[in-house]
Amino acid sequence: MANTNVRAYAAQDAASTLAPFPINRRDPGPLDVEIDILYCGVCHSDLHQARNEWHNTIYPCVPGHEIVGRVVRVGEKVTKFKAGDLSAVGCMVDSCRECPSCKSGLEQYCQNIATFTYNSEDHHLGGPTFGGYSDRIVVDQDFVLRVPEGLDLAATAPLLCAGITTYSPLRHWKVGPGQKVGIVGLGGLGHMGVKFAHAFGAHVVLFTTSPGKIEDGLRLGADEVVVSKDADAMAKHTASFDFILDTVSAQHDINAYLSLVKLDGTLTLVGVPEHPLPVAAFNVIMPRRNFAGSGIGGIAETQEMLDFCAEKGITSDIEIIPIQKVNEAWERLLKQDVRYRFVIDMASLKA
Amino acid sequence: MANTNVRAYAAQDAASTLAPFPINRRDPGPLDVEIDILYCGVCHSDLHQARNEWHNTIYPCVPGHEIVGRVVRVGEKVTKFKAGDLSAVGCMVDSCRECPSCKSGLEQYCQNIATFTYNSEDHHLGGPTFGGYSDRIVVDQDFVLRVPEGLDLAATAPLLCAGITTYSPLRHWKVGPGQKVGIVGLGGLGHMGVKFAHAFGAHVVLFTTSPGKIEDGLRLGADEVVVSKDADAMAKHTASFDFILDTVSAQHDINAYLSLVKLDGTLTLVGVPEHPLPVAAFNVIMPRRNFAGSGIGGIAETQEMLDFCAEKGITSDIEIIPIQKVNEAWERLLKQDVRYRFVIDMASLKA
Repeated sequence: MANTNVRAYAAQDAASTLAPFPINRRDPGPLDVEIDILYCGVCHSDLHQARNEWHNTIYPCVPGHEIVGRVVRVGEKVTKFKAGDLSAVGCMVDSCRECPSCKSGLEQYCQNIATFTYNSEDHHLGGPTFGGYSDRIVVDQDFVLRVPEGLDLAATAPLLCAGITTYSPLRHWKVGPGQKVGIVGLGGLGHMGVKFAHAFGAHVVLFTTSPGKIEDGLRLGADEVVVSKDADAMAKHTASFDFILDTVSAQHDINAYLSLVKLDGTLTLVGVPEHPLPVAAFNVIMPRRNFAGSGIGGIAETQEMLDFCAEKGITSDIEIIPIQKVNEAWERLLKQDVRYRFVIDMASLKA
Repeated sequence: MANTNVRAYAAQDAASTLAPFPINRRDPGPLDVEIDILYCGVCHSDLHQARNEWHNTIYPCVPGHEIVGRVVRVGEKVTKFKAGDLSAVGCMVDSCRECPSCKSGLEQYCQNIATFTYNSEDHHLGGPTFGGYSDRIVVDQDFVLRVPEGLDLAATAPLLCAGITTYSPLRHWKVGPGQKVGIVGLGGLGHMGVKFAHAFGAHVVLFTTSPGKIEDGLRLGADEVVVSKDADAMAKHTASFDFILDTVSAQHDINAYLSLVKLDGTLTLVGVPEHPLPVAAFNVIMPRRNFAGSGIGGIAETQEMLDFCAEKGITSDIEIIPIQKVNEAWERLLKQDVRYRFVIDMASLKA
């Protein structure tokens, strides 16, 4: 049994804009939670996927993996949620649960590949999974997050991808007091990276190409802002960083940042530039340095992040839009004309 | 006061071959050790430097940083050596000794830049430091290594660069029993990497482009040998390695090896390809992986390595040459026609 005619916005092919498209959602199974979607963040991945820039898109494509909503129905064996609860869904809706990655709470690295919130195979209804640019979603309780009291709901939505993607590596590489930490790029991910690194007690240096973002950087929690086009300003930081989080998805000179990392420090990439990034051998050899990557975070860590955000009063800086403006928002996203995340008010879809 | 007319082989410019050239060495100061050089290994760096392939060569250039010899004289305050002792000198002859790197025994990463055995500034006599393709060398006792009893002296020389360069990262990333470890390339460095990884108890997989090296790889201690041009054989090892040591100095596809590293594993580069290596973002993000580098090793660790080699009976596989054949050996080195290190018998220089 399936709910038909759930309202959604979909791309029908790589060239078309998003437009209304009714989708099916399954009725909740014994362990499922049905969520009425209140807000969905707009991630750059939504655009990459809908436009087939990763060459693997299944159409129709309903994007959206920064979902906050309210539980409307639960399956008979669900113990973690009840109707009326605030809840959230991030980038994944399932995984194999049996491989070493899943068993250690790193479902995003599932060796059998996690079921992502959109553009994965839907094992219940067939076809692709459909994301949060829609009215409702049905998800196994183990992949649903609790939204703590006190958080602004719209500004919480981006935590589900931009938040966990920056929180997880800062935790994994143990960023904390006494450390000098760089954040490269002040966009959806970067502004969360600045907030978290600051909250963890590090000395935070923001790198941006935009002199116009200096003031924002400082307001968001950076102790210093370096305009990365200024070679002299960059050189002053040579070999001095314990950790650098690189959030830039555009092609950029990774060696300029690697050279700022100190002995045994790490530069971690969370943005996904389309083409490989050339790394100079001497830049990791002298001195010994790590160039790493990190992808989103596991379910338990995502919950930990949400709880941390509630405790510290951290959310995303957002601009709320109705879903009818999503194509326009995507064009503005491409021009970096957003501070710092669009969030769709899903009431607009129900109107 | 300086010893003049010490016999050596030097390159006078990037285009010329090595030829006899008398150099000066200082008389031993209070803390210096004067060593009669018995053997000197031929490292690919010698050739890079002499031919100015790193664009920083000071001429005349006397290469050689895999030096084994016998102490002939010591300064009045020297406590660590006496005349007659077997001794060795590697890639460094001094460092600032005061920066955090030096104070933690990582002189190779000296923040004020170590004095390398050749092509650094000679702070005593002026001009460049001269390496081991020579009759004698005078070095501060703190940068001289003890050669334990029982090692073949000629086969010990390559341990001073090829040995420590592979030993140090295998130790730093804690390679040991229960781990699957890859060694990329079977040359001077790679064959030592195989020996050490095997001695540390890991399951060792050698990657080579040469089917003709399979037998040697197994003999040297590899549990498996993969011919890296065989895509199917490579694919079988996807995301399965705890650690990979990449010893290749030629340009090569680093992504092919990164994809073999498992979650939270590390690929460490010790070869220095001339051009940057393109790294695909997804290859470090999904799953989370480290791409690192490592340069030689500190003095204390070099001594630890020599002691370990004596205990385990590990030395380099070598071909001994007289210094008069060094130009020919370099040409063979370029064709990978050596198993696995040339060592110059310095008696030939005295003849």
